[in-house]
Amino acid sequence: MTPDERLIELGIELPPPPTLSASVAGRFLIARQSRGFLYISGSGPFRDGELVYQGKVGSDLTLEQGYDAARLTGLLLLATVRDQLGSLDRAAAWVKLLGMVNVAPGFTQTPAVINGCSDLLVEVFGHDRGAHARSAVGLAELPLGMAVEIEAIVEIAD
Amino acid sequence: MTPDERLIELGIELPPPPTLSASVAGRFLIARQSRGFLYISGSGPFRDGELVYQGKVGSDLTLEQGYDAARLTGLLLLATVRDQLGSLDRAAAWVKLLGMVNVAPGFTQTPAVINGCSDLLVEVFGHDRGAHARSAVGLAELPLGMAVEIEAIVEIAD
Amino acid sequence: MTPDERLIELGIELPPPPTLSASVAGRFLIARQSRGFLYISGSGPFRDGELVYQGKVGSDLTLEQGYDAARLTGLLLLATVRDQLGSLDRAAAWVKLLGMVNVAPGFTQTPAVINGCSDLLVEVFGHDRGAHARSAVGLAELPLGMAVEIEAIVEIAD
Repeated sequence: MTPDERLIELGIELPPPPTLSASVAGRFLIARQSRGFLYISGSGPFRDGELVYQGKVGSDLTLEQGYDAARLTGLLLLATVRDQLGSLDRAAAWVKLLGMVNVAPGFTQTPAVINGCSDLLVEVFGHDRGAHARSAVGLAELPLGMAVEIEAIVEIAD
Repeated sequence: MTPDERLIELGIELPPPPTLSASVAGRFLIARQSRGFLYISGSGPFRDGELVYQGKVGSDLTLEQGYDAARLTGLLLLATVRDQLGSLDRAAAWVKLLGMVNVAPGFTQTPAVINGCSDLLVEVFGHDRGAHARSAVGLAELPLGMAVEIEAIVEIAD
Repeated sequence: MTPDERLIELGIELPPPPTLSASVAGRFLIARQSRGFLYISGSGPFRDGELVYQGKVGSDLTLEQGYDAARLTGLLLLATVRDQLGSLDRAAAWVKLLGMVNVAPGFTQTPAVINGCSDLLVEVFGHDRGAHARSAVGLAELPLGMAVEIEAIVEIAD
């Protein structure tokens, strides 16, 4: 089963790919392809261009909300891959995530938050292609106060 | 127009490439080439070996000072590329930046700070080669209290 | 002298390679190989599955303890390389470290902490292969309150 077929089976409809806001457009890219890799910029928990999860996990937001924020971010990573490569199936493997959580002081369950994204990738791509190296760490502040930000490296199929 | 010619047109003179201080020399590298990529170590807002912007953006330093710090850091990234590759023109594309801002609590405009570096790269290399994937996030502390630290991945021309 | 021979000369016995705890197993990987690179997940200062250094460097822990934590983390990175590639000698070069220190407010000597890992890599691999690009920065929180977390990119020999 291809990742695109698996999405249908899971009943997941991908959102439109993220676009850059006016204040940063022209300055950087949602993603850059280089030497068989797709580098995806730090992405956040947006839906229809609106930031859905804002605030610090551990005070403003619960662990469960953080997990949902990471899953929502994962949907945008998938949308970016499809937009950049034409099809999810051209992603040979998810190589690496840097998962950054906007943490309240003392909140150390950052891996359980980023699992929201990792679980999605494994559901859609299976373990062989979807599982990835990662770090899941607590940042002092993230852009716009978003709850999580995740950047990714994907191996492009030949 | 090559990036080197563009620098002249912009009236920008690159600083000398950064060097490692005695306390870390021999331990790591300013940059490492591997499989057609140049990985550049986290660089900061130094001029003539002096740290120019120290402190937290949003309290000790304004957003505008943070932007300048990121631009100054970008000049050192350019100097490193020229030093490592012999010419800026051997940098086929800027692939990825991790932009880290030394933030005061509550300062979330980290993308606007890192734009100082991104803008410089696009000015010198043009959008096709200069624009890059990136994250721009807020760190709790940076070495020596520097205002920003930026690491980069560059694609080396064949 | 190979890195494996050098380990013996240094009297270093590598620990078993790290394994994922039940809460994250299946979700991600200790390491992913892709296009001649080995990407290693963020690793911490564990020994025999126990977290040895917990807390914030600069308050709960001294700089010296932070250095030891980074060295211990480096031993796990080496164990991961041997486990993944069969032999340390298949690591052609250490390309890049992202060294993250769990910092107390105001602690900015993060490079001196991460030197614990960098020194180990250079001791075992020599400067040509062991020295690497890196960043060494202060994070707000790390998983389980670990003192340091380090992720790595290694070039795999052809």
